[in-house]
Parts: sequence; structure tokens; C-alpha cells
Amino acid sequence: MSISAFSEDNLRKFTESVFTKIGCSPEHASLAADVLLSSDLRGIDSHGVARLSGYVRLWERKRINATPSITIVHETATTATIDGDAGLGLVVAPFAMNLALEKAEKYGSGWISVRNSNHFGIAGYHALQAVKRDMIGFAMTNASPLVAPTFTTERLLGTNPMCYAFPAGKYDPVVVDMATSAAANGKLEIAQRAGKPIPEGWVQTNAGSETTDAHALKTGGSLLTLGSDREHGSHKGFGLSATVDILSAVLSGANYGPWVPPFVAFLDPLPNLPGLGIGHFVGAMRVDGFRPVDEFKEHMDNWIERFKSAKPIDVTQPVVIPGEPEVLAEKYRKVNGIPLADVVVRDLNDLAERLEIEKLK
Amino acid sequence: MSISAFSEDNLRKFTESVFTKIGCSPEHASLAADVLLSSDLRGIDSHGVARLSGYVRLWERKRINATPSITIVHETATTATIDGDAGLGLVVAPFAMNLALEKAEKYGSGWISVRNSNHFGIAGYHALQAVKRDMIGFAMTNASPLVAPTFTTERLLGTNPMCYAFPAGKYDPVVVDMATSAAANGKLEIAQRAGKPIPEGWVQTNAGSETTDAHALKTGGSLLTLGSDREHGSHKGFGLSATVDILSAVLSGANYGPWVPPFVAFLDPLPNLPGLGIGHFVGAMRVDGFRPVDEFKEHMDNWIERFKSAKPIDVTQPVVIPGEPEVLAEKYRKVNGIPLADVVVRDLNDLAERLEIEKLK
Repeated sequence: MSISAFSEDNLRKFTESVFTKIGCSPEHASLAADVLLSSDLRGIDSHGVARLSGYVRLWERKRINATPSITIVHETATTATIDGDAGLGLVVAPFAMNLALEKAEKYGSGWISVRNSNHFGIAGYHALQAVKRDMIGFAMTNASPLVAPTFTTERLLGTNPMCYAFPAGKYDPVVVDMATSAAANGKLEIAQRAGKPIPEGWVQTNAGSETTDAHALKTGGSLLTLGSDREHGSHKGFGLSATVDILSAVLSGANYGPWVPPFVAFLDPLPNLPGLGIGHFVGAMRVDGFRPVDEFKEHMDNWIERFKSAKPIDVTQPVVIPGEPEVLAEKYRKVNGIPLADVVVRDLNDLAERLEIEKLK
Repeated sequence: MSISAFSEDNLRKFTESVFTKIGCSPEHASLAADVLLSSDLRGIDSHGVARLSGYVRLWERKRINATPSITIVHETATTATIDGDAGLGLVVAPFAMNLALEKAEKYGSGWISVRNSNHFGIAGYHALQAVKRDMIGFAMTNASPLVAPTFTTERLLGTNPMCYAFPAGKYDPVVVDMATSAAANGKLEIAQRAGKPIPEGWVQTNAGSETTDAHALKTGGSLLTLGSDREHGSHKGFGLSATVDILSAVLSGANYGPWVPPFVAFLDPLPNLPGLGIGHFVGAMRVDGFRPVDEFKEHMDNWIERFKSAKPIDVTQPVVIPGEPEVLAEKYRKVNGIPLADVVVRDLNDLAERLEIEKLK
């Protein structure tokens, strides 16, 4: 596998041209590209432009609407439910977060559940919009079922990520952005490509046994929840994933559990769905709704310094503050470009050919 | 070890008499007893009356104020910070949750951070107050440092529990109430009493090595975060625990990280504390701020039925819905009484003697 680096600007223009070509407005194309590029810049390669052709295939199957009328279907001063009209989650989730920020500006906090949406990229992008305004940001989404709760062989949950983002003072924001499964699917793909086994505790077979086979999902196996097994708290990972599913979908009227439509276009949604599309949940709280912003940031800096300076087990590996690796990746990639595997580049250029737009330079 | 069962009523009266004797108002004594009894009824033996003498010892050391003036120190329409005046967390947290419920009643949601408090019992008790009013409840608290973040040997975090509680229709509420560590300290104590090793992944030694020694905390070891090691997502457990610490304490002005005062009275708080007491964070959102309550409950029931009927790995062990074991325990113990180990009974009767109140019957 070879890897080439592409400049942010180059990839951004390419991504915008794809979204424009399928009918998105210039504003939506630019926003959707910003979400995907943010993922690539932050080093989360699985959620960036590598997914672009996946979104387009869903649009081709008419499961993504490039010109959605996003509407507020239910509302109080600080809460609302939004219908994304089957739009790109990359556009629907920012709409929801903007509404949360408006409500928080007026009333201290804002909370939006979203139905009838599609995959929204990385949760961190959305939560960080709040941080820019000295608020605490929350973002979560449910996702296609790949994960088995404790004690069953059935895939009933997605990797259902949750994100909490906090502004700091002289340091970068603390951003907890995590799948609620023990390992993300992307880690299996890396092991598959390398022909290597995976650690026990990531995946079970279709019979519910432990396995180190990176291909076990292809034969009916499933990802495990954070905690891996009951003895190590897999029921807690299940509880967190359930929380994401309920806030994102049971609350909004989206599909939940095994009914969440698959991201891959070659699999059809199940019949008799209980809801519309996939669901998200986003929120924001003003820091100064609790204490003066300067005070909060000063203590955040103190928190970060104390944890960062903790005595390491191995002197070459200090404590990693949540969000730190993503900031380092972003700084590096802004300068040195975004590395893409040749398989991704080929996929993007095939897409360009099919859509009759200019290929990646 | 022998075990005797005590009726709820009997234990409740005893607990109230203890709190009254140390100077709590009848209203506070009754509320604090209700929180502790709820823990015992729900089967969480470590957080109920077994802690009663611990609270009294903190009061004797003047670290708990039996007659606090709980005040709102900062407020917006939907957010506030409360100062617990060093009162019992068992009383301060309900005050905070009531304020959250009032705000949610008016504006759709309410969020309260709390400083200058003490241990608040089980998070589930507080979150469930919201469920009674058809709201979604949130409760979390930081706690004395026993847990090491990924890559360090230092105890910088408590077991920092988080709770999310959701009303259902014909079924019991879904309640996700979990420590963000891989295992709770209570599980170590069980292994210690039984003279048995613990599974790898719960605890590390003072040098940061894996161990199965249930006594490792006594020689400078620490509990591990949910995920147990980096490969299985311990950085996620760290992120969740950090979220609890920041929302509960950095936001409110309580102590955070290694500065959280110890629950055991024989250890003094560190010098130069950055805040006041320990911190909590509670919140509530009206379900009908998002969709009609009946619709939500109908889909919650469908969610529960689908997960409950999932194909089991072992037919004798069906999927456990979060909160289900606690409801079963409560139903059983309401009828059959609350079992207490003889060591707890002795501790409570020693306490009665010291306080000159009637012993347990």
C-alpha cells in the first residue's frame, strides 16, 4: 500500500465539487466538505474523504436527499426535534448545532434531537462549534448495527459515538470523542490489510465466542461494546451505547437498534422501520451559565497541567489529554498535507470519472 | 460471614435517627435516609447504610455540616451553580435536582453543577427523580482519587459515576448507572474477604504493571479506567471520567482530580485545594420537549422488547436491560428485607452506642 499526501485546499475543492455535482447548494457543499476535511485533518482517516464515495452511492440509491428542507418539528425554549428530510448528516447536524447554540445563547443551554438524517462525520466537529463560543459541546449519533450487547450474538447497536468538548485557556480544548464499542471498525480493517490477528476483546464470532480473527464480522460475528466482556464492564459500554441510541433516535423519531439503515448502499434498510433515517443528539451549555469563563478556563488549564504532568509508567509515553492527538495531527497535516492510501485515491478518482468532474491533482 | 435481613422500615428509622442525632433537620434526615435506603433496596450494598458510619466520621471531623445553608451562586434560565455549604451530598444533590426539574418544567431543560458537597449516594436515585415527571434524568459526581488514567501510575480520578435515566411505558425505566472505572472498589473488597485473586484489567500495581492481587491498592496500586488497557479503550474510560470531573467540579468550583477530598475520615484533604468540597452535576430534559410522551414511551417499550428478546449466547442468560437488576432487587427486598453482613450490623450498632441512640432491631 502506498500513500500520497494531498493539500487541504486541494482535497477540499475536490470534495466540494463532488457534493455540488450531486446537487447540493454551494453553501451545503462547502459545509459538508468542511466536516469531512476536519476529520482528515484531525487524523480520523476512516471518517473523512474516504467515505465520500459511500455518501454518493447512498444518494444514487435515493437514500440521501441532496436538497433537503430541514424543519423543526417540535420545540421548547431549550429543546427541539429536527427532521433532516433525508439530507446529508454533514449538513443536518450543523443545522441542529446552530439551533442549539442559539437557544444556549438565550437561555443558557440548548438540546436538539434529530431524525431522518444520515451519517454526520466525526462527532467532535459538531461539539467543537460550541467551544468556539465558550460553551461546552455535546454530540452523539447512532449508526448501522455492528455491535452486540453483552450476552447476545445479535448486532443491535452501532459504534454509537459520544463527544463532550470543553474550552480551555492557554491549552487546546479537551475533546472526548469516542465510539462506545471496544474498537472501531477501522482498526479491524487495518489488521485485515496487514493480515494480522486482532486482540481478544474486540470482536466475537457468530456463536458469541472470543476470536482474534480480523475477518469475523464477515461471517456473522460482531464488535463488542467498550469493556469487552461482562467481567471488565461490557455492560457499561452497552449502557453508553444504549444512551446514544435512545437520545438520538427514540427521542427524535429516527430508527434505533437493529433498524438503523446500513451506511453501505448495497444493503437495504430492514422492512417496517420504526422511524425515519438515522438519529443524532447535539447540545450546548454556556460556561458562563455556571461560572465566569475566565475562572473556568484557568481551572481547565490547571486540570490539564496536572494530568499532563502525571508520573508516567513508561517515561517515553506521557499521559494523553483527550483531544490532544487530533490537535497534533491537524497542526501537522495543515502544513504537510493529508496522507491518503492509494486505494482511497483510486476510489476518489473512479468517483470523479463517474460524476464527470476533475480528478484529484 | 453471616448475613441477616432487616426490614426497610426498620433500617430507615435507624438511619433517620442517626442523621437526626448529628443535628440534621427532620426533613434532611428523612431525605438522606431515603437516598441511602434506595441504594440498599436496589442491591447496591456498597453505597447504602454500610456507609452511614463513614458519613458520621466525616461529620465528627467537621468535614460535613449537618445544617447547611445551600445557596444558588450563579444562574441563568436553564443553568445554575449551587454551593452545598459542606452539607451531606445526600441532601445537597436532591436540592440541585429539584432546581433542575423546576427549570426543565419552565424551559424544557435544567442543568445544575454543585460545589462544596460530599458523597451523594447512588447517581441513579437523583436521575430517577426526573423520570417520575416524564423527564430524562442525568446525574454524575466526582469522587476520591483511586483511579489512574491511561499511561500513569498516579491516582488522579475517582470512580466518577455517570447516570442516564429514561422513562418507559409498560416496562421499568432504563437506567444506565455506572462507575467509569473497569471495576468498582466494592468488587475488590469482595475478593479480599474471599481471599481470591481478581481478574487482570481491574487494577495495576504502584509500578503500573498488571496484577490479580485484590490488595494492590493498599501498596500504592490503582484502579483502572473502563477499557482496562489502551488496546481495549482505557483512554475512553479516562475520557468519560474526565468528563464527569470537569462537569462536576471544574464547572462548579469544586475540587477535581487528585484534590478531591477522601471519603475516609482518617485521610486529610491535600493542602492548597483548588476548589470547595466535591462536585456533582445533575440535569433533566422534558421528554415532551422533543416528542409527545406517549409516542416516546411506546418506542422505549419497543426498544426494550427488541433488546430483551435478542438471541442469547447462553440460553440461561438473556440480555440484561440497563437498570433491570436494580428493579428486581428492589421488588425482592421490599418484601424480604435488606440483607446486611454481620460486619455492617456491628458497625451500625457501634455507631448507635457512640451516638447514644437505639440499636438496630
